[in-house]
Amino acid sequence: MKDEILEMIHAGSIDMTRVKNLFSQPQMNTVDIAEIFENLDREKIVQFFRILPKNTAADVFAHMDADQQQLTVESLTDTEVGEIVNSLFVDDAVDFIEEMPANVVKRVLQNVQNEKRKTINQLLQYPDDSAGSIMTTEYIDLLANATVQEAFDVIRKTGLNKETIYTCYVMHWDRLLVGVVSAKTLMLARPQDKIGNIMDTNIVFAYTTDDQEAVAALFKKYDLLAMPVVDKEKRLVGIITIDDIVEVIEEENTEDFEKMGALNPSDEPYLKTSIIKLARNRILWLLVLMLSATVTGGVISSFEHSLAVLPILVAFIPMLMDTGGNAGSQSSTLIIRGMAVGEITLKDIIKVIWREIRIGTLCGIALGLVNFVRIYLMNGRDLLLCTAVTASLFCTILMAKSVGCMLPMLAKKLKIDPAIMAAPLITTIVDGTSLIVYFSIAKFIFKL
Amino acid sequence: MKDEILEMIHAGSIDMTRVKNLFSQPQMNTVDIAEIFENLDREKIVQFFRILPKNTAADVFAHMDADQQQLTVESLTDTEVGEIVNSLFVDDAVDFIEEMPANVVKRVLQNVQNEKRKTINQLLQYPDDSAGSIMTTEYIDLLANATVQEAFDVIRKTGLNKETIYTCYVMHWDRLLVGVVSAKTLMLARPQDKIGNIMDTNIVFAYTTDDQEAVAALFKKYDLLAMPVVDKEKRLVGIITIDDIVEVIEEENTEDFEKMGALNPSDEPYLKTSIIKLARNRILWLLVLMLSATVTGGVISSFEHSLAVLPILVAFIPMLMDTGGNAGSQSSTLIIRGMAVGEITLKDIIKVIWREIRIGTLCGIALGLVNFVRIYLMNGRDLLLCTAVTASLFCTILMAKSVGCMLPMLAKKLKIDPAIMAAPLITTIVDGTSLIVYFSIAKFIFKL
Repeated sequence: MKDEILEMIHAGSIDMTRVKNLFSQPQMNTVDIAEIFENLDREKIVQFFRILPKNTAADVFAHMDADQQQLTVESLTDTEVGEIVNSLFVDDAVDFIEEMPANVVKRVLQNVQNEKRKTINQLLQYPDDSAGSIMTTEYIDLLANATVQEAFDVIRKTGLNKETIYTCYVMHWDRLLVGVVSAKTLMLARPQDKIGNIMDTNIVFAYTTDDQEAVAALFKKYDLLAMPVVDKEKRLVGIITIDDIVEVIEEENTEDFEKMGALNPSDEPYLKTSIIKLARNRILWLLVLMLSATVTGGVISSFEHSLAVLPILVAFIPMLMDTGGNAGSQSSTLIIRGMAVGEITLKDIIKVIWREIRIGTLCGIALGLVNFVRIYLMNGRDLLLCTAVTASLFCTILMAKSVGCMLPMLAKKLKIDPAIMAAPLITTIVDGTSLIVYFSIAKFIFKL
Repeated sequence: MKDEILEMIHAGSIDMTRVKNLFSQPQMNTVDIAEIFENLDREKIVQFFRILPKNTAADVFAHMDADQQQLTVESLTDTEVGEIVNSLFVDDAVDFIEEMPANVVKRVLQNVQNEKRKTINQLLQYPDDSAGSIMTTEYIDLLANATVQEAFDVIRKTGLNKETIYTCYVMHWDRLLVGVVSAKTLMLARPQDKIGNIMDTNIVFAYTTDDQEAVAALFKKYDLLAMPVVDKEKRLVGIITIDDIVEVIEEENTEDFEKMGALNPSDEPYLKTSIIKLARNRILWLLVLMLSATVTGGVISSFEHSLAVLPILVAFIPMLMDTGGNAGSQSSTLIIRGMAVGEITLKDIIKVIWREIRIGTLCGIALGLVNFVRIYLMNGRDLLLCTAVTASLFCTILMAKSVGCMLPMLAKKLKIDPAIMAAPLITTIVDGTSLIVYFSIAKFIFKL
């Protein structure tokens, strides 16, 4: 059905009655409808939006990307905008508003119900990446002395507008969180059972100011579907659901990929970021690394005399630099990732270094052997040269592995993000050192 | 409470009555108990395991890591082992069995109920990383002509042993999947409503052979909590729940990190993998890249004459190589990640290349300027040298950006994993080319 509509759009002949009919089919998913909207021009968006069934419009809107949301809002009347945003879950409303320019935000907030506006404004104040900024306020709350029957009544009456009904939150009269009860427990209990007797008092919760990455780690550890968020006084203020956590996990992974690729992390999708901004996110790191690499150049210059006597030495510089960089990036990648998923902690540092030394030795021997044979066969069976290059290669790999595992852990210790200690930085550090080792060994062997 | 037990363990004076009491507290989480087990010696494990409340033992077991599971199974009697595995969800049982050595597997399967053994054996046959290998078979199935009241009866009777009761699956008599109905819909419906009338016929499902990464993408797109898995004839055979998908997402991300760090991906945690295996996962890529880097060495050798005349040229090799590598890895990281999360598709290739060319130009100008000034000030105000190095730097960055974005997309086109086209490989490719450009420009400018 989605494909049928997309075909009509691309063919340029749209039968609106047919589209309206398809939109209201039960097999039509709101996510797919939102995807259809991404293929529409400005003037078509409002036409399509107005024929959406009333009960799906907000849901479709929540799944659109920011550009499409903005176009839609700009084309609709104030009343229509108000209706949509009133029907959005407050976390979706906040996500949407955060992406809009100031004039749109103003117009949206003017047309929203008073209470919703207050909640939205509250959530907007939580720092980026905090639990408060990703939570929503539509949850089911129960009192401990209610019965299961009464709980079901509450769910039936208010459940349609709650983000999840599968975990209900039990509060004291002063909003202090005292327990959680799952819909499963409710369904398996007797109608007359008291909530206080069947609720789970082992609550995994977050404070509004907790970092979203830490919250995601708790979701993973305890296999949660939802988590309550409390303020400093432990009063319940919102919940976070697993679908938002999946997004957090992907965001945090993207951030790590970017840092490890020597990029300034950015929330915006690549294709929607301006060229200037993309370039700015890259230039700083490139500059830092370029200037550090000139140090390596200085190392080479200082051995100019050796090079003049034995020019063949230059030919092995790229191989040594690249292998050192790769060996180091292998180690740093594993350690950074291991710390990110919690498999490696700071107390493993000695164990990790000892492992990397042994791995480095094995890799060094394997690569050294291949390298020795290759140089022997290709560079006129010069055993001294073979020995000098191979010994340097071995030292380079061993050093790269050690630096590659130690720097990320050192960063963690200093509370710097280990991800920025990745390949590019380590490559630059290893380069200079490995060339010093190389030239020193060469000087010694060839008595330069 | 967890901390109290951990303290007792570390102090070496364990009060088993107290531990048993703590284990049965409602605030005690099975995940935390499993964590306590990780701190126990072999002989203590079985002692602790036997004082677990009957209804939590299987749950605790499911959350242990493989080593601890093995120690536990090895210390328990056949009957006890049978009991635990019979109480495990079949996907957890499969996960556990897959990690065990052959003799343990044999013993486990011998002591499991016939039917469970059959299901386990079936699931074990699905290929690694397929939907079939991560699904479970404990779901609630309903018939379309049942009423909501009857559905609740089914849930109450069988729900306790189902992995989720929040999505129920509606089947035709021949097990053909015809719809899904959420517990929310059931709770909000009238008892006499027919399931067939309230179920959702817009079903997002997977085939047993689908790749787990594709399944995870569907979960993310449609914000699902569970997804039905069908066989080739579209008969329902299992379900996948969101907690397993969160693990899949992290696994796939780890795999991408590893590939991008020039490592053979491995499922095992770093600290639990043998040194030999870790070294093996690294050596192949190091060898390939080392041998490719020797090509770059060959490039340098072929310009030996120029170097002899103007030895200062060598000093800029590390800076050019490193900057090229970093510029390329920035682009490849963004493109690989963008494709992994679905933000960039193959049809964007022209757009992406054009963006990278413009970004490369901006980065090239910025770095070129800094570089020009630096060389001018530090290398005796030699304008020719400044020009040669800066022009080479600019070309290197532009080329690195283009190669960095094109290779991952080319890989995707050829159905190779784009992640292996990451920093290390691109560095090696850019190295040689940039040195050729460098020496050619130098030869031209200095008329060597």
